[in-house]
Amino acid sequence: MDSIGKERITTGWAARDPTGILTPYTYSLRNTGPEDVFIKVICCGVCHTDLHQVKNDLAMSNYPMVPGHEVVGEVIEVGSDVTKFRAGDCVGVGALVGCCRNCSPCKSNIEQYCNKRIWSYNDVYTDGKPTQGGFAGSMVVDQKFVVKIPDGMSPEQAAPLLCAGVTIYSPLTHFGLKKSGLRGGILGLGGVGHMGVKIAKAMGHHVTVISSSDKKREEALEHLGADDYLVSSDAARMQEVADSLDYIIDTVPVFHPLEPYLSLLKVDAKLVLMGVINTPLQFVTPMVILGRKTVTGSFIGSMEETEEMLEFCKEKGVESMIEVVKMDYVNNAFERLEKNDVRYRFVVDVAGSKLD
Amino acid sequence: MDSIGKERITTGWAARDPTGILTPYTYSLRNTGPEDVFIKVICCGVCHTDLHQVKNDLAMSNYPMVPGHEVVGEVIEVGSDVTKFRAGDCVGVGALVGCCRNCSPCKSNIEQYCNKRIWSYNDVYTDGKPTQGGFAGSMVVDQKFVVKIPDGMSPEQAAPLLCAGVTIYSPLTHFGLKKSGLRGGILGLGGVGHMGVKIAKAMGHHVTVISSSDKKREEALEHLGADDYLVSSDAARMQEVADSLDYIIDTVPVFHPLEPYLSLLKVDAKLVLMGVINTPLQFVTPMVILGRKTVTGSFIGSMEETEEMLEFCKEKGVESMIEVVKMDYVNNAFERLEKNDVRYRFVVDVAGSKLD
Repeated sequence: MDSIGKERITTGWAARDPTGILTPYTYSLRNTGPEDVFIKVICCGVCHTDLHQVKNDLAMSNYPMVPGHEVVGEVIEVGSDVTKFRAGDCVGVGALVGCCRNCSPCKSNIEQYCNKRIWSYNDVYTDGKPTQGGFAGSMVVDQKFVVKIPDGMSPEQAAPLLCAGVTIYSPLTHFGLKKSGLRGGILGLGGVGHMGVKIAKAMGHHVTVISSSDKKREEALEHLGADDYLVSSDAARMQEVADSLDYIIDTVPVFHPLEPYLSLLKVDAKLVLMGVINTPLQFVTPMVILGRKTVTGSFIGSMEETEEMLEFCKEKGVESMIEVVKMDYVNNAFERLEKNDVRYRFVVDVAGSKLD
Repeated sequence: MDSIGKERITTGWAARDPTGILTPYTYSLRNTGPEDVFIKVICCGVCHTDLHQVKNDLAMSNYPMVPGHEVVGEVIEVGSDVTKFRAGDCVGVGALVGCCRNCSPCKSNIEQYCNKRIWSYNDVYTDGKPTQGGFAGSMVVDQKFVVKIPDGMSPEQAAPLLCAGVTIYSPLTHFGLKKSGLRGGILGLGGVGHMGVKIAKAMGHHVTVISSSDKKREEALEHLGADDYLVSSDAARMQEVADSLDYIIDTVPVFHPLEPYLSLLKVDAKLVLMGVINTPLQFVTPMVILGRKTVTGSFIGSMEETEEMLEFCKEKGVESMIEVVKMDYVNNAFERLEKNDVRYRFVVDVAGSKLD
């Protein structure tokens, strides 16, 4: 423990400009403070948001930027006030590393909705320094934003759960949908959508994958275990499924009409939006009024929900479909992710890439 | 009781075509069946929907049409299986007079969401005959759709509660908002909006009336008892109120942007739409995702909620602001309603107009 209080350096892979090309970048980590956990990264999932961030698609990017917010690592050292973790623990870090702790969401333990939340990377920490993510040898993270990975869960399997997994788990639990027998729809079958099928099935739901084309039918039904597959342009089948779903998790990240999907919902059912879309979505009010239907959204999940979700996934044996790659493949991975050429999540084997 | 089984005639005021002009019209009522209640109408509220219906604004009007769906009357006679009411009772009838009784909403006692609901007028009853509303001397209504008016509540005060009142009460109770200390917004100050202020205040809420102009400020604060008044074009005040409301009841019946109002809501708060608007409403998804905000709608209320709401209004002394007119003034009333020239609800004194 002699390194407490000393500043360490680490090497990550950083984007330098909006081309989004990642190259090795060495930087210092803050001292391991009393509440901090110093983590050697084992692996890190690749999320679509990382792609938007490195390419400055949201016009908020600062460079150099080390992305990665589905981080699994080993605890090397903990600060004096850390009681929950000890050296050797396998832990996870997700999209956030800070919050104000005083606002109403913070006090309700839904810190993901704190207006002063601090992102794992491309943000500024309380010490004024940029935050850097999990495509790096190591990280220092406040214990509040660290979760224990359950014994027996592999780091590679755990990684995608830390963002994609909790993003699905949080609205299903929050909106009272974590009960067996429900009929759910998953709109869009990317990283989050595929996790949606897995987690909804694990909750005992009848799951319909809804897609604009027939391309992913076999994948959804044979490999992911969905119960039904619905092509949104198939008017006859859309009519057949009308008024039958308790919820739809809508992961589509581009403009799309809402009415066809609202019509699939039962009275009191919910359309939960996940995709950040700056082109306005539209609906006519009778579609929601006459069935008291809800259009809402949800954003990752709380730390509490993350822990609960990990236990749930372990207990139910939820496994995501991943492709493990080394760090020097990350630029290819981003390229392939942009073309949706991955089933369904890349995970970078950071420890095996020997960065530090 | 010798009239059981006999067909009666009654006189109402009916629209004959899309001019919407009402003139006296005599028609027969069905026999008082075992489950039916024969009611002599005392008074009937005038709702904005009546105006749309008589003028065929929804392109679904059949003539002759006797409107009126905020009906208070006296029970004259009941069918053999009616146990809840007896002659002499003061009762109410709202927007619906029938439902299928077998679907999921019917079985959950939210029959207002039954796809086979039968409207009080401009619909076809189970006997194949047109339904006619409360601007008439009498009605025959199935006991399921009749509610007792609490002792001591005047018929004129009760009438607007049967549609406008329950339209507000239902979402506030259903969405868990019937508790004191909440901060609510009422968008639009017509018949439903003014009832919104009254009922939300009676629930112990801090109520902000939100309007496009300053015109109704005094009315809202002085006469209706609202706590605050917000003009939506006042950017500074809109910013001041941002993230502070637990809900907004949106009664505006024409296209309007949703984002300014979504921004007033707290995390997890709800925007409840009431206006049937066939021009699509719009929002960008981060507005709902980043605060888990809900856009939903609500449609009148159930018979159970109607009874509960009447008791609530009696207990809390909720009084609506009404202008009582005779039947031969109804065409003027419609004209003035179209110009929003009423504070806030016309009630037609049907009994005093001596139709039958």
